Amino acid sequence: MEITFLGTGAGIPSTKRNVSSAALRLDSGDTWLFDCGEATQHQILSSSITLSKITKIFITHLHGDHIFGLPGLLGSRSFQGGESELVLYGPKGIKSFIETALRVSNTHLRYPLRIDEIEDGIELNVKGFTIRTGLLEHGIESYGYRVEEDEKPGSLHADKLMELGVKPGPIYKKLKDGESIELDGRIIRPTDVIGPTIKGRCIVICGDTRYSNRTVNFAKGADLLVHEATFSQDKPALAHDYYHSTTVEAGRVAKRAEVSWLIVNHISSRYQDEDVHQLLNEVRAVYPNTDIAFDHMTFQIPLKKAGSI
Amino acid sequence: MEITFLGTGAGIPSTKRNVSSAALRLDSGDTWLFDCGEATQHQILSSSITLSKITKIFITHLHGDHIFGLPGLLGSRSFQGGESELVLYGPKGIKSFIETALRVSNTHLRYPLRIDEIEDGIELNVKGFTIRTGLLEHGIESYGYRVEEDEKPGSLHADKLMELGVKPGPIYKKLKDGESIELDGRIIRPTDVIGPTIKGRCIVICGDTRYSNRTVNFAKGADLLVHEATFSQDKPALAHDYYHSTTVEAGRVAKRAEVSWLIVNHISSRYQDEDVHQLLNEVRAVYPNTDIAFDHMTFQIPLKKAGSI
Repeated sequence: MEITFLGTGAGIPSTKRNVSSAALRLDSGDTWLFDCGEATQHQILSSSITLSKITKIFITHLHGDHIFGLPGLLGSRSFQGGESELVLYGPKGIKSFIETALRVSNTHLRYPLRIDEIEDGIELNVKGFTIRTGLLEHGIESYGYRVEEDEKPGSLHADKLMELGVKPGPIYKKLKDGESIELDGRIIRPTDVIGPTIKGRCIVICGDTRYSNRTVNFAKGADLLVHEATFSQDKPALAHDYYHSTTVEAGRVAKRAEVSWLIVNHISSRYQDEDVHQLLNEVRAVYPNTDIAFDHMTFQIPLKKAGSI
Repeated sequence: MEITFLGTGAGIPSTKRNVSSAALRLDSGDTWLFDCGEATQHQILSSSITLSKITKIFITHLHGDHIFGLPGLLGSRSFQGGESELVLYGPKGIKSFIETALRVSNTHLRYPLRIDEIEDGIELNVKGFTIRTGLLEHGIESYGYRVEEDEKPGSLHADKLMELGVKPGPIYKKLKDGESIELDGRIIRPTDVIGPTIKGRCIVICGDTRYSNRTVNFAKGADLLVHEATFSQDKPALAHDYYHSTTVEAGRVAKRAEVSWLIVNHISSRYQDEDVHQLLNEVRAVYPNTDIAFDHMTFQIPLKKAGSI
């Protein structure tokens, strides 16, 4: 599982950072998109992501820099032969935006598109994952998505099974299903031949927001938190007035939520390449396990063993 | 007056050609945009065009590759401090698309936006220009815009006036207004000191269309015709079925309309860089005064003297 940042700027595109989008690639090969600012499909053109593999899109909030790339991307996915269902989640209003854009432009999608309008505290159960929504603080409805991967059984130790003389077949399945078996008078327990359970990973991706204790609770213990840091630490009043966060505030959320890793995004275009080091230092002073996202940056979310934090 | 092509591809963006848009820069400094596919504002970012100078946008038809960049561009124009009125012209439906996008995304423009829905045969009179709409053939309503610049009076010959002993002042204005004057017993006629009238230029920019005699009539005698050529000459049936034109058909329109120059755009992404020379040859075999547009290509429309064709 890995996340690729497709747009990491704030409000309007710049030549360095496009408006918001990130793609989460699952082990199954499916890709989930989080937000879809204008020209997200252009960013995808110069990545290894395939439009037809995008099966879900999660919209955090309805500001233009997070949704104006949707009509074009949906249309191009059809044009390029995408046939599998796509589900779009977003706050109330997303349905009217998409339906109007597709109707006016006479766009007929060749795949089924489902649009589910979300609210606070929703739980979505999809194969292998539970996704929860959490309201943030942004003037308009803005959400975070908490993606929790299901726990997976450990894998069978082929070497050990060979040693014990257990041959591949129905017995393997019994062991995997947690049943002990008897072989030549010996009892073989699943724990003898199966590795430790693999804990599911947890990623929290937030929309635009002020610093909020709600976010701290929502992100609790995540392996990865993606949180905005529109402004530098010297602009807390500006950040507050515009319902955004500073670098330090993003760091504080990560620290209090005790996440494993923090990536900040939604960087104002007032900051140039040479300022990024300073911004990173500001967050790391509060929370060391931090990166600042840049367009096309990919972050691998490592597998976890049982018992690991 | 010059035209810069911002997107010259067809249907979906590629890494080489963005979806449709062209910017006409007037001598006054104002810029008029023709179509606004997704990421037109991104193309503008890497050009010398300024969003606040865009005072009119003309939409040829409502297919997504011609309009999905509008909401973002309108928002960014406001974000960047644009305050002057912007008028958007387009077929019926454009108002509903824009109003929904701005409402849902909570975008509040700081400048007045007027949206005028057009139909066939409309005449728009704006300072220094007359613009006419002409229906083309594209399955959905698709229009061409014929932009006719007003004739301008010739300029005063300063040398000649000096020779005749006429000093700058109210007399200059009288002569420019077409009045003869008397100076020291001599009659000076405007034609003695004013150069020939400068004829207005005429540019015809078409939306997507099949070959059509309507276009021939509409483009009659233009200094520049911008016409689509989605397909190569070997795909006339495909072009017809999808309401598009081939290279040769575009050339035929230019020839029959007796325009001075033809630029073809809306090139299908099936054609690579190395195919463009062949496409150009195909058009030029029918109509030699032709270019194939590429993204960021600029074409100067030269001034005309009275009597020139």
